[in-house]
Amino acid sequence: MKKINVKSSRHPYSIWVGKGVSGMAGKALKSLGFEGKVFILTQRKPAKHHLAKVVRSLKAAGYPGVAYEVPDGEKAKSLEVLRGVYAALLAKGFERRDLLLALGGGVVGDLGGFAAATYLRGIKFVNAGTTLLAQVDSSIGGKTGINLAEGKNLAGAFYPPSLVLSDTQVLETLPEPELRASYAEVVKYGMIRDRQLFALLERENERALLRSPRILEDVVTRSAGIKAGVVSRDEFETRGERMILNYGHTFGHGFEKVSGYRMFHGDAVSLGMACAARLAVRMGMLDPFVELRQLAVLRKLGLPVLLERKRFDAARVVGAMMHDKKKSAGKLRFVLPESIGSVTVRQDIPLSLVKDVIREMGAR
Amino acid sequence: MKKINVKSSRHPYSIWVGKGVSGMAGKALKSLGFEGKVFILTQRKPAKHHLAKVVRSLKAAGYPGVAYEVPDGEKAKSLEVLRGVYAALLAKGFERRDLLLALGGGVVGDLGGFAAATYLRGIKFVNAGTTLLAQVDSSIGGKTGINLAEGKNLAGAFYPPSLVLSDTQVLETLPEPELRASYAEVVKYGMIRDRQLFALLERENERALLRSPRILEDVVTRSAGIKAGVVSRDEFETRGERMILNYGHTFGHGFEKVSGYRMFHGDAVSLGMACAARLAVRMGMLDPFVELRQLAVLRKLGLPVLLERKRFDAARVVGAMMHDKKKSAGKLRFVLPESIGSVTVRQDIPLSLVKDVIREMGAR
Repeated sequence: MKKINVKSSRHPYSIWVGKGVSGMAGKALKSLGFEGKVFILTQRKPAKHHLAKVVRSLKAAGYPGVAYEVPDGEKAKSLEVLRGVYAALLAKGFERRDLLLALGGGVVGDLGGFAAATYLRGIKFVNAGTTLLAQVDSSIGGKTGINLAEGKNLAGAFYPPSLVLSDTQVLETLPEPELRASYAEVVKYGMIRDRQLFALLERENERALLRSPRILEDVVTRSAGIKAGVVSRDEFETRGERMILNYGHTFGHGFEKVSGYRMFHGDAVSLGMACAARLAVRMGMLDPFVELRQLAVLRKLGLPVLLERKRFDAARVVGAMMHDKKKSAGKLRFVLPESIGSVTVRQDIPLSLVKDVIREMGAR
Repeated sequence: MKKINVKSSRHPYSIWVGKGVSGMAGKALKSLGFEGKVFILTQRKPAKHHLAKVVRSLKAAGYPGVAYEVPDGEKAKSLEVLRGVYAALLAKGFERRDLLLALGGGVVGDLGGFAAATYLRGIKFVNAGTTLLAQVDSSIGGKTGINLAEGKNLAGAFYPPSLVLSDTQVLETLPEPELRASYAEVVKYGMIRDRQLFALLERENERALLRSPRILEDVVTRSAGIKAGVVSRDEFETRGERMILNYGHTFGHGFEKVSGYRMFHGDAVSLGMACAARLAVRMGMLDPFVELRQLAVLRKLGLPVLLERKRFDAARVVGAMMHDKKKSAGKLRFVLPESIGSVTVRQDIPLSLVKDVIREMGAR
């Protein structure tokens, strides 16, 4: 088991990574000196596979626990479901000294984190991510939120968890397509900050997809470590550094939006990174050989790198990108690779070039 | 004009107190280096009296502004109204770099602060309180929130404003009963921390009620200064110090609840302080002469100090107090005076004595 430390303006916290750490939840809370009740927010699938183990661990440590299931999928991230979570917390007598533990993927973590951030102006929060995506990305850094009718993550808060539990064993029950798509974010960490992680994926992509425990622990630990470093230095996305985590995401959000969110986030990020590398080559910033190495590793991990012509129209994608909240003062920001392990942020890319690149990658 | 500095985990901020400071909003934002748009959240009455001045000041400084009125009264602090605020912010293209300015009383400040805290995971926030209560209390310290069907302030966040503008001139249009009730919180500051402020109220209560500009500025500056000091040291109500701001409130919340919130918060706090002093005398902690001095100053300010027998039943009040979220692990905490300017927190008060005291103050 590995521990990674994260700083935040409120308090530091640890990420525990390893096989079986969700069964150490009770022990971990004891080590934090926590005394109170635990509200476990979860969804059907993570509840089925992992709830019993967590409850057993809490019980063994003497913590009373209550489990609350929210509806499947992204639709749980709504004001209506949030209101139901508040009502359940109130009905069960939860007070400011108590704790909410999110057991599930990014949806559960985002909703649970926002509920914890805002119930009685904030109760303690533990994020136990049960997907590779949650473990390498969304469970770290305090971003919480829900969707509104107008779009995704439009209401939320930066709220640091007190603890992150990333049990790599739970990844054994993760559906194949979800596992595969999640590796896009891991490739991202390699490209933005970690040549060794990138090389590991080039070398071990087969065993990564076969869920070798050693590789999974390595991948999660390295990815979480990079994200922990970035968010410790730029908690509120105000200093620019956190922006590099959006590598592949400016394009990616455009693809997700145009698809009506009917694609994996990871697939959108993979396509986005392919476009970003293409753009960097076109700007003369990147060696074309590096673009090819990135394409190769994405393909070997089963990730898409070409846009389906009938699905994506370049002008519509750019329009969707312009609506994304991460644009600053109406300008699109792109995170572009300079080499493996190093990126830079650019705000001066002509939209016509952006459109060209999207077309070169297959769109009409 | 006086400036008071406040610390928070996110950033320090200033409170500007004085005649006409709401007309300096544009200048104040310039001094913060702000560049963006301003969403003014307000209600009918503050909009009628003060909006034009604020808009003029923003325009003169070159800031585009949008005004948005929410329904009158406490019912604006709801999830439905909040959703409307989000929708308006989105419709007007507000981004993370922009700002929400709350122009109104505590309701507008609480709702506006929570909207600012959670829209796009947080935009800048300015609190321009237009009531004495907002200026001496709710606009300082970052407490924001809305009500749920189950009770008041059950969802919210600690979110520091970037600036607080307390224009004492706007208090000229405040209805008499509201002004009067607000002085309860000022008496509170005197009792918990400031003998000179208490003495000022003993000496100048008539001029205070006649809205002497000099007295108002003095009262707001001293009160805001005390609150600023307390919340700077105990931002999240975790160290106990912030608890002293609840002097009179443990009882007061009980009265408000039993009355169905059909009384001024300040009147409830006045009755609560009368009970707390009585309780302190019964515990042998307080000189009975100090209790009398407090009763006298509350009466002179037109505040209630006796409970109406037919309105309040002691057992029901205690039941309501027990439901308050500020109880810790099921125990009621009382802030009790030891002398003028000094209080202590006690958790060991027998409920039977609490009931006795409520009856001694007039309840059945």
